[in-house]
Amino acid sequence: MKAVGLYKYLPIEAEESFLDLTLDKPKASGHDLLVKIQAISVNPVDTKLRAPKDIVEETPRILGWDAVGIVTEIGDAVELFQVGDAVYYAGDVTRQGCYAEFQLIDEHLVGPKPANLSIEEAAAMPLTLITAWEALFDRIRIIPDADAGKSLLIINGSGGVGSIATQIAAWAGLEVIVTASRDETVAWSKQQGATHVINHREPLLPQLKALGFDGVDYILCLHNTDAYWDAMQEIILPQGHICSIVELQNPVSMSLIKDKSVTVSYEFMFTRSKYNTSDKVRQHDILTKAAELFEAGFLKSTLNQTLTPINATTIKEAHRILESGKSIGKLVVKGFDEDDKKEN
Amino acid sequence: MKAVGLYKYLPIEAEESFLDLTLDKPKASGHDLLVKIQAISVNPVDTKLRAPKDIVEETPRILGWDAVGIVTEIGDAVELFQVGDAVYYAGDVTRQGCYAEFQLIDEHLVGPKPANLSIEEAAAMPLTLITAWEALFDRIRIIPDADAGKSLLIINGSGGVGSIATQIAAWAGLEVIVTASRDETVAWSKQQGATHVINHREPLLPQLKALGFDGVDYILCLHNTDAYWDAMQEIILPQGHICSIVELQNPVSMSLIKDKSVTVSYEFMFTRSKYNTSDKVRQHDILTKAAELFEAGFLKSTLNQTLTPINATTIKEAHRILESGKSIGKLVVKGFDEDDKKEN
Repeated sequence: MKAVGLYKYLPIEAEESFLDLTLDKPKASGHDLLVKIQAISVNPVDTKLRAPKDIVEETPRILGWDAVGIVTEIGDAVELFQVGDAVYYAGDVTRQGCYAEFQLIDEHLVGPKPANLSIEEAAAMPLTLITAWEALFDRIRIIPDADAGKSLLIINGSGGVGSIATQIAAWAGLEVIVTASRDETVAWSKQQGATHVINHREPLLPQLKALGFDGVDYILCLHNTDAYWDAMQEIILPQGHICSIVELQNPVSMSLIKDKSVTVSYEFMFTRSKYNTSDKVRQHDILTKAAELFEAGFLKSTLNQTLTPINATTIKEAHRILESGKSIGKLVVKGFDEDDKKEN
Repeated sequence: MKAVGLYKYLPIEAEESFLDLTLDKPKASGHDLLVKIQAISVNPVDTKLRAPKDIVEETPRILGWDAVGIVTEIGDAVELFQVGDAVYYAGDVTRQGCYAEFQLIDEHLVGPKPANLSIEEAAAMPLTLITAWEALFDRIRIIPDADAGKSLLIINGSGGVGSIATQIAAWAGLEVIVTASRDETVAWSKQQGATHVINHREPLLPQLKALGFDGVDYILCLHNTDAYWDAMQEIILPQGHICSIVELQNPVSMSLIKDKSVTVSYEFMFTRSKYNTSDKVRQHDILTKAAELFEAGFLKSTLNQTLTPINATTIKEAHRILESGKSIGKLVVKGFDEDDKKEN
């Protein structure tokens, strides 16, 4: 099978940062599905895992954790899917990724592709969708409708996670304030359903006060937790909940967090698969529920750009765009050859 | 009225660390009750607020946030209590405390004294009870019975909060592992309902593994969060929840916390009153529910020692005992004169 992999971890400009490879097609067993990949999306975790380091792999490392494809083979323990099913999923960073014609994936991490989305629209969604869903509903434990009217600040609202988090939070009935600083990101965030957009290059609290908020019930921090820590301590309401997906790089003060009895969660989409938690089927459930919400029109794809076909050249280009830090919404790479391109 | 107060913040040995004073009796208005104090309990917050510093008060500062007494007057907006009611409460650190014959207290922070407890048994409970209840049910959001069988590690189980937290968690159906290191604290924790007691002077994870736990679902940290941080990161299960009542003094690493999608809460019992949150009646509800549990025999007082009467000498002695760091359960000071002593 065709695959895009690496032996060395190199800057993206390097000739060998990604290579076009031909590898053996894997075989499904146990709870694994073998999926023929139709489109993939790239995420910051891809560039983080590719970051230059002095490791040389003996067998090629395949990255990529967002895919749409067709189940072509199932392991003997599979219960949730059949051969021929169209699926979408993010996957498991401890295994090989989806920059390949075929991929093995645990059925518990897979959902049915939303029927009304194109292959590339669906491929844009799983990782960011699961991250946003877990952050809002499993970490902060917002209850849709019951928590309607509560306020959520999303720091960096126009990226992949921020875009779908805005939609999901709006669907759940929250007042969603997102930060953005460029005209195009402000417009994008409003399209996703943000109630208000404020500028993260200016102090946040005065902007919130001008909108009538003394603080917010929840904060979802999707960018540079260190830089926003003091502002978040100030902005979060007593007994509020902050969830971050970005690891603190430096030590921070907790004094106001303690005084306000604030809760701070980290969301890492790969915790369930990496630690093989007993509830990992939750990711199947999230993707299934989200597919219904796409089909009912409550959610829409955050796809913003598609490259084609999937090869070392387009994957390099996708990583370059991601590393620029300017991407809006999601970037998908589609198809392995001309036949695939015609499929959609 | 008699009161024990201070003008200067001094080491407890100092002559003027506490003074016997005669002050005007306050008057109830709004949602305030005026309570004739029968017994008080001391807590670490008392010694923290008394800690030596270069401030001289113009009017005496009265500390103390655990009281039992009788309502003798009510403000015009009071709805929950009547004159003559026996009550117990912790109160509000932003106002005068309970080392006084009479105290004003917002009715939303007050509960009915458990009928089956003596005055001193009841006075021992409010602050630690509310802290433990908020930590387990409002911060960690454990659901009694529904979360039965999940594991909770309480670091420093034999102090005031640890003792009642052990009882409450056992009532909620959790497996409660507490840390203690002395024979008498081990015995005390078992009396409170701990399933297991491990030694906090030895590495914790090997002791947990020896008991059959790979980790725990929840941790309640009641002592030196800094010192236990790395152990807690190691011990907490993926997607687990840590709640601490002790502010971090030094910066810590969050790397494993992030990898496991862990949630960390701070619990500060005075958040609701200090920030006047819209849900502060929750403390009335907690004290009321707990009174039922005391009366039904599910909870028992953690009183361990009673001094009498309430004056500068006994309050100094109570602070000295607290500052020794060796106290087990709770210390109460009872009555303002010989008449009060006979009341119970």
